[in-house]
Amino acid sequence: MQIIESPADLQLAALALRSAGETIALVPTMGNLHEGHLSLVRTARAMATRVIVSDFVNPTQFGPNEDYAAYPRTFEADCALLEREGADIVFHPSPEAMYPDGTSVSLIETSLSKHLCGASRPGHFNGVCTVVAKLFLLAQPHIAVFGQKDAQQLRVLRRMVRDLNFPIQVVGAPIVREPDGLAMSSRNQYLTPAQRLEAPALHRALEACSTAFASGERSVAALRKRILGILSASAPSGVPDYVTLADDETLVPLDDADTVSRPVLAALAVRFGTTRLIDNTELRP
Amino acid sequence: MQIIESPADLQLAALALRSAGETIALVPTMGNLHEGHLSLVRTARAMATRVIVSDFVNPTQFGPNEDYAAYPRTFEADCALLEREGADIVFHPSPEAMYPDGTSVSLIETSLSKHLCGASRPGHFNGVCTVVAKLFLLAQPHIAVFGQKDAQQLRVLRRMVRDLNFPIQVVGAPIVREPDGLAMSSRNQYLTPAQRLEAPALHRALEACSTAFASGERSVAALRKRILGILSASAPSGVPDYVTLADDETLVPLDDADTVSRPVLAALAVRFGTTRLIDNTELRP
Repeated sequence: MQIIESPADLQLAALALRSAGETIALVPTMGNLHEGHLSLVRTARAMATRVIVSDFVNPTQFGPNEDYAAYPRTFEADCALLEREGADIVFHPSPEAMYPDGTSVSLIETSLSKHLCGASRPGHFNGVCTVVAKLFLLAQPHIAVFGQKDAQQLRVLRRMVRDLNFPIQVVGAPIVREPDGLAMSSRNQYLTPAQRLEAPALHRALEACSTAFASGERSVAALRKRILGILSASAPSGVPDYVTLADDETLVPLDDADTVSRPVLAALAVRFGTTRLIDNTELRP
Repeated sequence: MQIIESPADLQLAALALRSAGETIALVPTMGNLHEGHLSLVRTARAMATRVIVSDFVNPTQFGPNEDYAAYPRTFEADCALLEREGADIVFHPSPEAMYPDGTSVSLIETSLSKHLCGASRPGHFNGVCTVVAKLFLLAQPHIAVFGQKDAQQLRVLRRMVRDLNFPIQVVGAPIVREPDGLAMSSRNQYLTPAQRLEAPALHRALEACSTAFASGERSVAALRKRILGILSASAPSGVPDYVTLADDETLVPLDDADTVSRPVLAALAVRFGTTRLIDNTELRP
């Protein structure tokens, strides 16, 4: 497994692989790898002859009051895990190499990113689009694998690929969960033991929503109420940032007076102290 | 010579050419081809085994009061010229194919585009960056050729290639002029006969500036005065939009009190009625 720090070196290596007829799958990560990331690497491994994993905490997707400086960085442990999963290249650039002085061109997304997490994280998805576009151009993948846990990110990036004509297949991989249902996340480690005990309520609330939906419930108000009821009962110290049923394609939130007649993303974000957790499920009528 | 209208078809063709080991040069144009464009095609022809020319009047780089609807469209004549120059593929998409309903991801440039033409054409260079990024991803070129007449565009696109890591060599080709010195432009045909007689003063003014510079003049005020004097004497019906000496890399305008100590772009835009002409020259101390 090769570790590459220089963007130019990665691009040369990727172009050489393509010229040699290899297919490349890219797994963009911010490092601090857990089983969720490794499932993405396995998906990539099964779909391509070469797997490139980027391990880069991207400063431009963090807001001024977010956890960029504190975000856990565990590069050596990450490499050990990636070696075991059969990654071919780990790309680990410095922020200065990715954003040289005088950088002035970036990407913006003006529709999907207005809703859900985007509403409380202005600029976040612009930063995500910009860094992923750069990673796409550096790693030259045929396939890119992202987790469905970041449901809005997945949809924004699919939109980016369509709108800018990247010749890349975007694959969304299922959420990987702890045994008690909590979606795996690098931010879970910020939770206090008491918060950690409450956190699986996010998934239980979404499961209750799915169960009601499967039983025929189509009222947005009723489905949201099911989620909010479990959150307030089982995660009393969590403060919901949003609990939203949104159009699965446009991410426009449905109104409580609406009924579900098209595919919907049921998504939520809950703050435990300064730690913000997200989870989601799809509802398909 | 193949004419392709579908973005997806162009991308398939381009990827197939790359896989077959061809080198691709792209010449993005808005059609209405003149000798200036053909010189770009010849440069492309000399540098690559395959030449793709895009012929697309891009709506997103026109302001609401600009000449998008009126911009001359001469596709059949363009194809005859391109066939003669040995272009391999002409890409001629519809605006709807390039910008499907719900398009929401685009590029922005926040530094170079503040100055010169960008000051009076807000959003223009964002539109240019977005369409050229799309053309790059569709045509998959190794080399892209642009004219030095659009000096600011060339610098913005070089910045885009650097900032987003496109693996593309950007080539700037020299300005092609009419026998009387007027830089070739699709917009020259809008000029009345009287305006057309005055228009070569733009180039004469820049030449006078270059001559003074070569003789040792380094005062920004004096060099600008040289340009403005010739414009007011020889193009009295032209209204200067700007006459600027700008840092050649950042495009930040120099002040009249400055002296030239680094490479400078001497650039101007002059309006004849509703027709806006541009020209430029580089000054290297």
